[in-house]
Amino acid sequence: MLIIQKYGGTSVGTPERIQNVARRVLATQAQGHQLVVVVSAMSGETNRLVDLAHQISSDPIGREYDQLVSTGEQVTIALLALAIQSQGGQACSFAGHQVHIRTDNAYSKARIKSIDGSVIQKELQQGRVVVIAGFQGMDPEGNITTLGRGGSDTTGVAVAAALKADACEIYTDVDGVYTTDPRICPEARRIPKVSYEAMLELASLGAKVLQIRSVEMAAKYKVPLWVKSSFNEGEGTLVTSEEKDMEKVAVAGVAFDKNEAKVAIRHLADKPGIASQIFNTIAEANINVDMIVQNVSAEGFTDLTFTIPKSDLKKALKAVEQQAQKLGADKVEADEHIAKVSIVGVGMKSHAGVAARMFSTLAERKINIQMISTSEIRVSVIVAEQDMEPAVKALHAAFELEKD
Amino acid sequence: MLIIQKYGGTSVGTPERIQNVARRVLATQAQGHQLVVVVSAMSGETNRLVDLAHQISSDPIGREYDQLVSTGEQVTIALLALAIQSQGGQACSFAGHQVHIRTDNAYSKARIKSIDGSVIQKELQQGRVVVIAGFQGMDPEGNITTLGRGGSDTTGVAVAAALKADACEIYTDVDGVYTTDPRICPEARRIPKVSYEAMLELASLGAKVLQIRSVEMAAKYKVPLWVKSSFNEGEGTLVTSEEKDMEKVAVAGVAFDKNEAKVAIRHLADKPGIASQIFNTIAEANINVDMIVQNVSAEGFTDLTFTIPKSDLKKALKAVEQQAQKLGADKVEADEHIAKVSIVGVGMKSHAGVAARMFSTLAERKINIQMISTSEIRVSVIVAEQDMEPAVKALHAAFELEKD
Repeated sequence: MLIIQKYGGTSVGTPERIQNVARRVLATQAQGHQLVVVVSAMSGETNRLVDLAHQISSDPIGREYDQLVSTGEQVTIALLALAIQSQGGQACSFAGHQVHIRTDNAYSKARIKSIDGSVIQKELQQGRVVVIAGFQGMDPEGNITTLGRGGSDTTGVAVAAALKADACEIYTDVDGVYTTDPRICPEARRIPKVSYEAMLELASLGAKVLQIRSVEMAAKYKVPLWVKSSFNEGEGTLVTSEEKDMEKVAVAGVAFDKNEAKVAIRHLADKPGIASQIFNTIAEANINVDMIVQNVSAEGFTDLTFTIPKSDLKKALKAVEQQAQKLGADKVEADEHIAKVSIVGVGMKSHAGVAARMFSTLAERKINIQMISTSEIRVSVIVAEQDMEPAVKALHAAFELEKD
Repeated sequence: MLIIQKYGGTSVGTPERIQNVARRVLATQAQGHQLVVVVSAMSGETNRLVDLAHQISSDPIGREYDQLVSTGEQVTIALLALAIQSQGGQACSFAGHQVHIRTDNAYSKARIKSIDGSVIQKELQQGRVVVIAGFQGMDPEGNITTLGRGGSDTTGVAVAAALKADACEIYTDVDGVYTTDPRICPEARRIPKVSYEAMLELASLGAKVLQIRSVEMAAKYKVPLWVKSSFNEGEGTLVTSEEKDMEKVAVAGVAFDKNEAKVAIRHLADKPGIASQIFNTIAEANINVDMIVQNVSAEGFTDLTFTIPKSDLKKALKAVEQQAQKLGADKVEADEHIAKVSIVGVGMKSHAGVAARMFSTLAERKINIQMISTSEIRVSVIVAEQDMEPAVKALHAAFELEKD
């Protein structure tokens, strides 16, 4: 089999841990597999570099910033290759540009356009472990680009797709995807298998195990994606295409997110074009809107409520307040003390009553629902921040997620 | 004018110093010059990386080692470009491979074969300061190579040669080339102008201001080379082709080196091929021999004495002792407590009596000369380690080097 393994910054955080990764890699190779390993920068290293940049410049962005931070992964690939060699194995390391990971030129958030697998294949055929720097690539002019934080997952999946690998294993400091965060709900259980779609919802709802773009790419190229722990030998979670036996499970997990804020514009004239004016203003400020709710019109007026990243609240209010005044709204209200709680599962779309059970569970706990948003495989609600933990626990129990 | 400036690790050792370099660069550009800046890794950074490698591998050499340590310069180029931008200038940084610095594939001691100046010229024409990573290049297969410690000087000169620059300025923590080390001889004087040949001898004899290869390359391509301080505005030393007014000076400087050890093989049969067998053995052990002295034969036997780097002494003795035994020598003696003291000057070759004056000066001080070696522009002697400082002082005074 051809296996891609990706190790994050914590897994390669010290020389000792790099030796551990080398051992694991060589053990896998000894089972007769071909191995490509994608690594992140050693934990702390990217922050060190970013800190240096901020000591130099108040606004260190663009080409030079990417040139700088990409060195973090280059250090790790060289050290891991040396570790594999010191344990008697054969290895060869490559920075992104050396295996022609072509990206667009959107510095710090570049997207991979293509990977030329020929360099990698040549090394694999000679029995070498190929070690590749995650998170980075090269634009058409030869400038070094980075994919943004967490981009190493995306590199792993992109390499797996380019090489048509049999599996892409993402090693991290947790041993799989859980029904919810065990720190909040001790009954949380590792999910052995989850669909790309459900994983995407879980990731976008705050489960930090996988980067959304890497899941999107895995889904697009049908790369079987494993989430495993680099510190133990657990089975992990397989993220794969939807299969029959998945449908039995209505709800796969409960996700939550405390990083959103709510903005409400009161008493807006309810006429065509109002919403587009508001949201164009927000888009121009480069702010991503998540949930949007518009009340039913009463006497020609309506309330418009939406959520945005908490970190963008000031910027959003500045943009919106002017606009709201112009449109004759009564006032703009903001609330940072909210949380989003979601139930996710591919099975949901064919199971009636899932949303109803969610709402009644929360009602029994006297938890007030401020906003609701649904997709085919997800129901999300906004609740007060202090209601988040009880809500997660109640929903985890109500949908019997602790059971296998 | 097109000026190449090279800044060493101390000059870019902190974010503050990088800002200072940016200021100096922009001031030079403001005078109407085009600027290419070559930088080393921040002081301490290369050691940090080497230390990491040694924690991973007992013998971290070859391709991966170069992949690792080359990141040091990449960090500096990005930071310097950011610093120039933050001061309102325009700058663009390039790793060695990005400006096609082609080398052979002798990892950690690669030699530059060619530089394609077109990328650099394009940026210069747009008014940008071009910042290039010293010390590194790329072999024909696209592997990253390094030139060995001090290789950033060589990069500076090579870029100057490729672009036919008007000057190459090497910024360091001393303000020029001195007649000898001021720490030993306070009368030491900065030399305003010195020939490539004399500079080569001075460098190879332990004056650490310039790397030998960079001087060789400057001589070959007739690049006017300035040694200047990055911490003050002094005039520095110009290293250039031999000119008429240089000939007036018989001796330009006194150099010394404490890093050699002496090996003597006693009572060797004096017949053809003996010396070649000994030195072949040493060459096979990859040890550079410096001075060699063979005594006049007495009764068919001779003594063979030579110096090697102190750090290679153990390895050399291991190689030589076996060989000497085979050849029937009496014994092999080693002495680590020696020093080499040399007088250097292009004028010497046309001035009779320079060597004689050196020997009589040392004799007056009762300093015993253990070995002698000469070239056209240099006389070197080996003395006991404790005689080194008095010898340097006496010679500096005898040749009146304190006078302008």
